[in-house]
Amino acid sequence: MDKKIRIAILGASGYTGAELVRLLLPHPGVEISMLTGDSQAGKEMGEVYPQFQFAQQNNKPLPRLVSLENADFGAIDLVFCCLPHGTTQTVIAALPAHLKVIDLSADFRLSDADEYAKWYGHAHQALDLQKEAVYGLTEVAREQVKTARVVANPGCYPTSATLPLIPLLAAGLIEKDGIIIDAKSGVTGAGRAAKQATLFSEINDGISAYGIASHRHTPEIEQTLTRVAKAPVAVTFTPHLMPMNRGILSTIYVKLSREATVADARAALEKAYANEAFVHVLSEGKTPSTHQVRGTNDCVMNVFADRASGRIILVCVIDNLVKGASGQAVQNMNVMYGWPENTGLQLTAVFP
Amino acid sequence: MDKKIRIAILGASGYTGAELVRLLLPHPGVEISMLTGDSQAGKEMGEVYPQFQFAQQNNKPLPRLVSLENADFGAIDLVFCCLPHGTTQTVIAALPAHLKVIDLSADFRLSDADEYAKWYGHAHQALDLQKEAVYGLTEVAREQVKTARVVANPGCYPTSATLPLIPLLAAGLIEKDGIIIDAKSGVTGAGRAAKQATLFSEINDGISAYGIASHRHTPEIEQTLTRVAKAPVAVTFTPHLMPMNRGILSTIYVKLSREATVADARAALEKAYANEAFVHVLSEGKTPSTHQVRGTNDCVMNVFADRASGRIILVCVIDNLVKGASGQAVQNMNVMYGWPENTGLQLTAVFP
Amino acid sequence: MDKKIRIAILGASGYTGAELVRLLLPHPGVEISMLTGDSQAGKEMGEVYPQFQFAQQNNKPLPRLVSLENADFGAIDLVFCCLPHGTTQTVIAALPAHLKVIDLSADFRLSDADEYAKWYGHAHQALDLQKEAVYGLTEVAREQVKTARVVANPGCYPTSATLPLIPLLAAGLIEKDGIIIDAKSGVTGAGRAAKQATLFSEINDGISAYGIASHRHTPEIEQTLTRVAKAPVAVTFTPHLMPMNRGILSTIYVKLSREATVADARAALEKAYANEAFVHVLSEGKTPSTHQVRGTNDCVMNVFADRASGRIILVCVIDNLVKGASGQAVQNMNVMYGWPENTGLQLTAVFP
Amino acid sequence: MDKKIRIAILGASGYTGAELVRLLLPHPGVEISMLTGDSQAGKEMGEVYPQFQFAQQNNKPLPRLVSLENADFGAIDLVFCCLPHGTTQTVIAALPAHLKVIDLSADFRLSDADEYAKWYGHAHQALDLQKEAVYGLTEVAREQVKTARVVANPGCYPTSATLPLIPLLAAGLIEKDGIIIDAKSGVTGAGRAAKQATLFSEINDGISAYGIASHRHTPEIEQTLTRVAKAPVAVTFTPHLMPMNRGILSTIYVKLSREATVADARAALEKAYANEAFVHVLSEGKTPSTHQVRGTNDCVMNVFADRASGRIILVCVIDNLVKGASGQAVQNMNVMYGWPENTGLQLTAVFP
Repeated sequence: MDKKIRIAILGASGYTGAELVRLLLPHPGVEISMLTGDSQAGKEMGEVYPQFQFAQQNNKPLPRLVSLENADFGAIDLVFCCLPHGTTQTVIAALPAHLKVIDLSADFRLSDADEYAKWYGHAHQALDLQKEAVYGLTEVAREQVKTARVVANPGCYPTSATLPLIPLLAAGLIEKDGIIIDAKSGVTGAGRAAKQATLFSEINDGISAYGIASHRHTPEIEQTLTRVAKAPVAVTFTPHLMPMNRGILSTIYVKLSREATVADARAALEKAYANEAFVHVLSEGKTPSTHQVRGTNDCVMNVFADRASGRIILVCVIDNLVKGASGQAVQNMNVMYGWPENTGLQLTAVFP
Repeated sequence: MDKKIRIAILGASGYTGAELVRLLLPHPGVEISMLTGDSQAGKEMGEVYPQFQFAQQNNKPLPRLVSLENADFGAIDLVFCCLPHGTTQTVIAALPAHLKVIDLSADFRLSDADEYAKWYGHAHQALDLQKEAVYGLTEVAREQVKTARVVANPGCYPTSATLPLIPLLAAGLIEKDGIIIDAKSGVTGAGRAAKQATLFSEINDGISAYGIASHRHTPEIEQTLTRVAKAPVAVTFTPHLMPMNRGILSTIYVKLSREATVADARAALEKAYANEAFVHVLSEGKTPSTHQVRGTNDCVMNVFADRASGRIILVCVIDNLVKGASGQAVQNMNVMYGWPENTGLQLTAVFP
Repeated sequence: MDKKIRIAILGASGYTGAELVRLLLPHPGVEISMLTGDSQAGKEMGEVYPQFQFAQQNNKPLPRLVSLENADFGAIDLVFCCLPHGTTQTVIAALPAHLKVIDLSADFRLSDADEYAKWYGHAHQALDLQKEAVYGLTEVAREQVKTARVVANPGCYPTSATLPLIPLLAAGLIEKDGIIIDAKSGVTGAGRAAKQATLFSEINDGISAYGIASHRHTPEIEQTLTRVAKAPVAVTFTPHLMPMNRGILSTIYVKLSREATVADARAALEKAYANEAFVHVLSEGKTPSTHQVRGTNDCVMNVFADRASGRIILVCVIDNLVKGASGQAVQNMNVMYGWPENTGLQLTAVFP
Repeated sequence: MDKKIRIAILGASGYTGAELVRLLLPHPGVEISMLTGDSQAGKEMGEVYPQFQFAQQNNKPLPRLVSLENADFGAIDLVFCCLPHGTTQTVIAALPAHLKVIDLSADFRLSDADEYAKWYGHAHQALDLQKEAVYGLTEVAREQVKTARVVANPGCYPTSATLPLIPLLAAGLIEKDGIIIDAKSGVTGAGRAAKQATLFSEINDGISAYGIASHRHTPEIEQTLTRVAKAPVAVTFTPHLMPMNRGILSTIYVKLSREATVADARAALEKAYANEAFVHVLSEGKTPSTHQVRGTNDCVMNVFADRASGRIILVCVIDNLVKGASGQAVQNMNVMYGWPENTGLQLTAVFP
């Protein structure tokens, strides 16, 4: 890391943008050279998120926010794109070709143009890029990420849902049908835009389901699982919104393949993630909690025998803003530059 | 209600005891004549729960807490028993026979002595009473409750899990196997005893699963469903603990029977609960939230088509302390005395 | 209450409007005959606040929301006005003269036109009404409220701050200068409008002060205290925003007058509120908590000796949506119609 | 930092112990060589706090917890003591003399034996050590800390209360009497011991005051202020307990000295802390929030003019577990070893 790469964060005033700043400030390989935020252009990042008034980047202050149209990418090496779904594709298509891009929106996650159009209600505006983009679930796409120019950073729900399922599907230990994913998410997933539905008084002290059988992360989950299973996988996915800032807990119900056992499933998970820095399989009987990953890039899971023989229950937790978004983006950057994958990500959960 | 019945609450210093006091204070048919609480004996209820300092029962103060061994049941008509699981059975067996009893513990919920012994780890100590007790899920056991002497008040999870399933099983609209219940509970369900695991700092801003495939409410759920289905039903039940005081949201995944549709399921639920005061089926597409039932005896549910044809998703919410405990106990009392079932329970959710 | 009065709630889609509906549904003296809400006109109240789908008013459904311009007040007896500060004054000035009005905005609370203009930045638009309106802190203005046509319902902070101070100033037991009010409020006080600052993720797990030495409730507090003291009283008032839905806790620091003691102060408070249904002075050493008043019209206070001789500390809690808004409005209505003051307000706190 | 110092954490199973582990794991100057915890002896730290299963200390695992009586201090250089108040003094007195000690309990904070006995109800058991110990409010005691063997680490409330007051008292800008400190604390301050009063359901969605005019942090605050003012200072101190995990916000009301202005006060604060890594004075009008310091060693403050001329309001926030406990302890260690003071403490707040 002799020479630091210069990075830009587009949409730095949102929660994932701010989380990238938190993670990248102490990162030894990068210099935060540009922050864009149209509605906040001209402001210091410390005005938009006061905590950054007290943070320093190797004694170098953060740049002021600029509007995207005034951004000069000439000196930038890598762009993290934290813009809204739907509009991101045209922004990225218009970026100079020398830039590496890690996109945290959903725009390049689905590789099938029809599937995109079906779930997002309009034709994709950057079909070539859509084909080129690598879906960056790091643990399974590391080799492609290494050489990618554009990485589509996975969604938070898909990350928590697919990491426990992939080794089991790959090993043929579970059946492809009847996979049920019941996910519980913190509120930062809904972003910083002012909405009545995510006001404190509407969320506090209660829980509700939403997007039942219709959430847009469903095709993303299915795309990953279908690739692994080498056959179509359809899932039941139910997200819930609950009073916590960060965290997703996915409880996943699957059927074991004939003759497979919960011990086989445990062994497959342990083997798959034995050398991973961020994915942890708990010892038998221990239950994952989102408290264990608050603020970190860790993914913690476990597998449990169901009472009905032939079924197992997986529980998997991540911090939606870190492994579910900005942390995995940094992990992907580390891979792209050949740095140790946990550079800047050696974090311990902030608990209590 | 010319003459008020005199009620006693055993274990009034716990959360369900206190909730009974809240609900019974304005109830026109009762007089709270005795409150027991061994560790708090001699205290005013307003010392144990300060809010009761400001409440009056028809201008009559609440009695002081007494210890159980000093309790004189001669003038009492009905006992609500809020004592811990396991010890309740011997207490109730020793009560004078003239007393009606509504027991909020789990001790008399399982009618099968072997099943009880298997899940609770010891033989039942009051087998005759266990046989006599009526399982008081009011909407389905109203007729038996009317004439019962001892009512076993249902658990919170079983109430939220079985009310949506019963009409569908009864009508043969869903399959008996593969029922998955993913439940999310507030913290009051864990009671008022001091435990590290339920300290504010351990619970706040996070979620975890617990008792996976081993929670003691499982056999209670299965007993109810088995009776309705007239064939053995085994369920997958996963409870979760999350940062809210009151509320349970159960998300339930089931397979439709051949040729049944989600419209059939909706029709069955609407028909079953059309005349119920407390059970509400939302209109199509609306999602239940625990906010809608905070502090009330309501049970709110809805049914959704899954993406996979042949599956449906049920979502059901209750307040665990009201419909899941003390409110249903009052509802059962109303039935036992022939009073309108919603007497004292015409409550509106405290939201926001 | 032979004949029910017909009431209208203007601005029923806000939190104080919804709270009025909750409190008035079981009130034996009223019929909710009109609900206005411009942005939600045409909707059922149960669409705006789902809990009202399950509530019934003496078996009569709630009226649909109408826009203010389509409202016909011919059959209405009393209007509760829950519209925003600043615009309310012209709305109320234009209402038919036969209507009684209880206004929950700040528009008619300050009787001095100059003071209003200074704090609100524009001249008052209904000066005659401003003079006519009675400031409805019920415990001290009961006689005027009885015959008032327009009642200006007090603000939440002023209610919690002035009720403990009034008896002490009236008796000359405390000094008029150096009164410091440090108040902590729940988030519902900020209303239901979508704002970034009151999103769940911005509020949860933290606290901040706001409006330091500049909050508009300050002149309202001073007006009340000045009237009682019969001399100008200026206060230091610091509000804080913290993660709870409902509740205000005010901690108040004052100097005792020469020779007065904390025992004198306690005696004065106890005497002043001995016959009040809603104001409670705790016994010595007991600390008020907002948990004790969640959902009720109660105001709970206590007085403590400071370590420095000659100073005392007052702590006072209310539910900002009840005694701090809609509950006190109902209390004022009860006074205006000669009904028992606690009609519809005999509530017990929802705790835990 | 060629050679790492070997540190022990006594009482590592409490919250401040765990926070020390979080902060010290990535610290380049130390090796965590011993963790004691009597009730958890024999366990891995990752069993007591699951997040530590995923953390590594320079690829070296954390030691198992041992009981204090089995601890061998021969190879230890520095002890962080996180034991309960009252018992700590005899433990530390019995430690080998070669050890440096940073004590996070209150046992050595008061240098006056009589004052200790008065507030703690028993005579101090280690009077010599009490005299020797340096009170380690780093920003004002840096020079003494450098050469101290035993550092008494300040309390959380005193840290947040005295840092804003010290420069003003030192410069004679404020009066010594009538200082009022109204503090709001998160729940971790109450520790991890199971207590009914700090259960989730007792704390959530409410606030209360406690220890009014009697909290044991009062003499600690006064000792510091008296030293600075060189004359007796007595304060009014009211702590409050509110639903957040971490954080203290102190709102402080003081009188300006004759002719002093709020601008003078601002200038004094800015000058005092201009070169401090962790203490930040916000620009005029900006309000500190505990969100800004969640998880960091920062102390953020601001000063506001009161409406009454001659008074000012100070607002100061810290994370009670970091700058209020374990972070300041690390800061003190850094000073004791001549390392840059922010070593291991260059943290950014975890927000949202």
